[in-house]
Amino acid sequence: MKISHIEHLGIAVKSLEEAIPFYENMLGLKCYAVEEVADQKVKTAFFMAGQTKIELLEGTSPESPVAKFIEKKGEGVHHVAFAVADGVQNALDELNGKGVQLIDKAPRNGAEGLHIAFVHPKSTLGVLTELCEK
Amino acid sequence: MKISHIEHLGIAVKSLEEAIPFYENMLGLKCYAVEEVADQKVKTAFFMAGQTKIELLEGTSPESPVAKFIEKKGEGVHHVAFAVADGVQNALDELNGKGVQLIDKAPRNGAEGLHIAFVHPKSTLGVLTELCEK
Repeated sequence: MKISHIEHLGIAVKSLEEAIPFYENMLGLKCYAVEEVADQKVKTAFFMAGQTKIELLEGTSPESPVAKFIEKKGEGVHHVAFAVADGVQNALDELNGKGVQLIDKAPRNGAEGLHIAFVHPKSTLGVLTELCEK
Repeated sequence: MKISHIEHLGIAVKSLEEAIPFYENMLGLKCYAVEEVADQKVKTAFFMAGQTKIELLEGTSPESPVAKFIEKKGEGVHHVAFAVADGVQNALDELNGKGVQLIDKAPRNGAEGLHIAFVHPKSTLGVLTELCEK
């Protein structure tokens, strides 16, 4: 697997309405898009910091994985997404062959038209890890 | 404050000895340095992913903030460090003026010779936030 860079950080927040002004007014970053990903039961807000996006995530239902994460651990970094230069399916096959526990065995569609797949945090030392490509 | 990019992600792990081979053999990243920061009671291992470093952190004593973090939340992303283009002291003064709770009121020395300062996660929606400059 060839990781080119960190594509985004997913950060779980209780309220985008509260979080967006914080990132804009305190950290000086600019929210350039808001998108709902129905599949994941989240609303997302995007900011750019160098080559890495910050993706704020608010659950749209108490059953959403993000809402459950906040209930268990509080607000904070929810996942780290690496851009892979040689394809998500390749990376998944490689990890699977090495005994890594996958959440997705094949890429699916994520926000911003990316192909994405998640690797289980049990296999990644506690960090929910996403692999993605354009 | 002008954030140029994410300088590094600090990831709390129980054991560098276990974590370094995971990042090298599974994710294909290369550990280029290991350093002890006595001040923070941690041993760190560094990897590069595009313009952002991954800094694995293992507490060297049960009282280290990293060991306490793992006890409370488990292994995972411990902090996010933003590189600021216009100086850490400037950024701290600006945040302080806006009522943000700071851990450090002035920059101090971090790993790799950076000037760093931490902002309290109570003021940053749960994400322990570090500001840094070379």
